[in-house]
Parts: sequence; C-alpha cells; structure tokens
Amino acid sequence: MSNYMITISYDGTSYKGWQIQKNTSDTIQGKLEHILSTLAGEPINVNGSGRTDAGVHAIEQVANFHMNLPVNMTEDDLLLYMNKYLPEDIAVKSLVKVDSRFHARLSAVSKTYRYRIHVSPIANVFEKKYVYTYLDSPLNIEAMKKAASYLLGEHDFIAFCGNRHMKKSSVRTITDINFNLIEDNWGLKEIQIEYTGNGFLQNMIRIITGTLIEVGTNRRTPESIIDTLNSLNRDNAGYTAPSQGLCLVKVYY
Amino acid sequence: MSNYMITISYDGTSYKGWQIQKNTSDTIQGKLEHILSTLAGEPINVNGSGRTDAGVHAIEQVANFHMNLPVNMTEDDLLLYMNKYLPEDIAVKSLVKVDSRFHARLSAVSKTYRYRIHVSPIANVFEKKYVYTYLDSPLNIEAMKKAASYLLGEHDFIAFCGNRHMKKSSVRTITDINFNLIEDNWGLKEIQIEYTGNGFLQNMIRIITGTLIEVGTNRRTPESIIDTLNSLNRDNAGYTAPSQGLCLVKVYY
Repeated sequence: MSNYMITISYDGTSYKGWQIQKNTSDTIQGKLEHILSTLAGEPINVNGSGRTDAGVHAIEQVANFHMNLPVNMTEDDLLLYMNKYLPEDIAVKSLVKVDSRFHARLSAVSKTYRYRIHVSPIANVFEKKYVYTYLDSPLNIEAMKKAASYLLGEHDFIAFCGNRHMKKSSVRTITDINFNLIEDNWGLKEIQIEYTGNGFLQNMIRIITGTLIEVGTNRRTPESIIDTLNSLNRDNAGYTAPSQGLCLVKVYY
Repeated sequence: MSNYMITISYDGTSYKGWQIQKNTSDTIQGKLEHILSTLAGEPINVNGSGRTDAGVHAIEQVANFHMNLPVNMTEDDLLLYMNKYLPEDIAVKSLVKVDSRFHARLSAVSKTYRYRIHVSPIANVFEKKYVYTYLDSPLNIEAMKKAASYLLGEHDFIAFCGNRHMKKSSVRTITDINFNLIEDNWGLKEIQIEYTGNGFLQNMIRIITGTLIEVGTNRRTPESIIDTLNSLNRDNAGYTAPSQGLCLVKVYY
C-alpha cells in the first residue's frame, strides 16, 4: 500500500470537529474516510495531525492514509475525486505520496493555531463565522502579552485542559505566542493571537485565550497566570473562548 | 431635518437585493428603513446609490436619508444603534451628516463593481459564497481582455440589459475594465474583473461577464462583442453570470 499525505482546508462551522464519532457523520475525518473507503472497497483509516474541536476551522490540516490507488487512477485523479465528493466546506488542497513511515500525528513537530478576536462594534459581514466578536470592554493588549509570556516554554498545562480526566502527560511546550493587531481600510479592528507549540491539549488554546481576555479586561493580573499554571487546576483558569474564532494554520514536520 | 450619508457592507446571499419590495422583508433597503422608521416614529426613506440584484454583495454601498436625530442621540449613537438591530450580514460602516442636497444615487459620479471567478478545482472553503466557480474549461484571459476593450467608452448597452422593457436611456459609459489574476499560497486561482463606469443597467455586469466567459472559452470571438453591442438585442449577448460572484466595491462622488 502507498502512504499519502493530504493537506485539508475546512470551514468547521457545521462539523462536530475532526475526529470520527459514533452516531454522527458530521466530522471531517468521517467525511474523508467515507469517501476513501467507498472508493477502495475496504475501510481506510485517515490519521489527522490532531483533533480540532467542533466548530474550529483549518487553513491547513494535515492527514495521511494508506491505500492502493485504483487501476488507472493517478494521484491527481484522486485529489480531484475527493474534492468532487467532499462537501463544499471541506477541500483537499494537496495530495502527495510519502514515505511509509510518515504519520501525520506522530511525525508532527509543531503546529500553529490562530485565534481571531474582532473588537469593533461594526462587523466584518464577510468573515463573521471566523471571528469571535468581543465588545464587553476594551482589551489591554500589553497586559495580555505580558501574561502570555509566562506560558512560553515547557509546562504542565493541565490547568488549561478541557479534559478533566486526562491520563496521559499534559506537559507541552509553547514556543511562540504572537499578537497582531489588524486594522482594515474601514478601521475595523481585530486581534489575532497565534500560538505555536509542539502540541496542545483539548480546548487548551481556547482556555488560554479566554484567560488572556480576562487579563486584558483587568479581571486578573498578568502575573496571576503563573499561579494558575502552578495550581494544575482547571478551575483557576479563565473561560473557554468560543470555537469559531480558532483556526489551525499550519503543521510543521 | 438632517441629511445623513451612510456606507453599508453586506453579504447579499440571503437577500432579494437592495430595493424594497412588496411581500418580502428580505431586502437591504427594507431592513434599513424598518430600523430607522421605528426609531423615528415615522417613515424614513433610504436612498441607495443604486440597486444591487438578489444575492449580490457590497463592500461599500452608499445611501442617504433625511431624519431628525432623537433627543440625546449623537451620530455615533445612531451608528451603533443601527448595527445593534441590523442582521449580522449587514453592517453600517460609517455615518456622517452631509449637505441637504446630497443624494446617494443622483450625486454619484461612478461606481466600481468586482466580479470574482474561481477557476481552481480546489475550493477556497472560506470564500465560496463570494465567488463563481467556473471549471468547464480554461479561460483565455487575453481574449477576454480584448473583448472587454470594445466595451470601454459610451455605448447603448441595451444588448447587455436584463430588463427587456427598459424605457429610459440605456446609454452608459464604462471607463475601465480591469483584470486581475489572483493566486494564493495554495496555487488557487481566481480571476477578478473590476468594472468602473458612470452607471450600470439591470444585470449588465453579470451579462457582460457571462459574455466574456463565452469569449474566454472560444464560444465567441473577441470582435463579436462589437456586433453584439450594435445589435441592441439581448439575445445576441451571452448568459447572465450568477449573482454570488458580484460585489459593489466603491461609489465615487
């Protein structure tokens, strides 16, 4: 069997996340496996680089699967075939044959996620499904940056994990948290926070973002993040920012 | 009464166009007039710079209306009030008091519309509502540019008018038709055609675009556009390209 790596873009609005689940066909992995298994005539397992939560988008998710191409079908044909049968909010951007040992999750070195916070009372009507609109009070970005700096490096991030029954290691390394203040022609303002790290726990970026927003609105101090981390207790972190503002941007190998 | 000019952005997907109609509340003008009339306690008429068809979008539509601001309400308050009560696919971007003689349609000097044609088999999942996906055959852009050049200047565009019972003058001036070939990081390709002119007839840009696509696929020659123009007969022009690819970009005063 050949091993294929695909890059996939999706608007996660209508899906229950990446990972296939019983009792629902509304997952990205489920859609991909259904199309490939039907074509192959046998079950094909698609390994994603990681799970994205329900409602989270991806500019470039990466996955791989092992399969024999049907006779007379080239790799380009398979790419077009998948896009023909996928729903229009999922697109396979590229497909390449890779070494048999490549595994989208196990081989991944790091990932970048982007969280978009729209902070203007005037909506960007064309992007509203892809941003979290936050208008409760202005955000102090300098305080948020300060707080974020305490999260860089290797830590046990269990206090920022949405799964309270996590059994595996919750130690992860965040290598970069980058803030961009975007202002368009209209003066519409958006804060983009880009997180790069070797892996992220369930809901981790959304909980960190919610906690940073609480810092940015003076509900907690930047330094309080250190205590939160050290407490190893989810109850001490902030709220889980909504999924629609989050997007998987890039997976590095 | 004061005269207010507003700029409005909308995702036209769910609307029956700009112009208010009987038996439906799903028009942009209708939504604006409803909110303002409710606030004012009397009917407020909102003049748009022009009608956009059902399904057509606007980055910057312009309109004006005459109204007395309620006591204690500033212009900024009115802007926020409108955005609070408008559906989330319509946004008022700015509101300024203008000279009483200003009229969004009569004062307009020219307008720019953009038609987006996506020509990659791989979809841009985040923009699919705003482009026309055309995959029947490759488009010869040079031939389309040549054909477009014959449309520049002042002409009777009745052959490109969707209203077969047009009684007013159908003479218009197109000052610029500009082609941009956009290619993103993914190699996804999109052709954007920007039309600037002193005014456009009903469906005119969509019919011109459909005709240019027929030129681009060798179904007609670039020079045939001259005969089509001179024939003054809609039957000699091409098909009406779908509304979702069209967007009003800018109105000049």
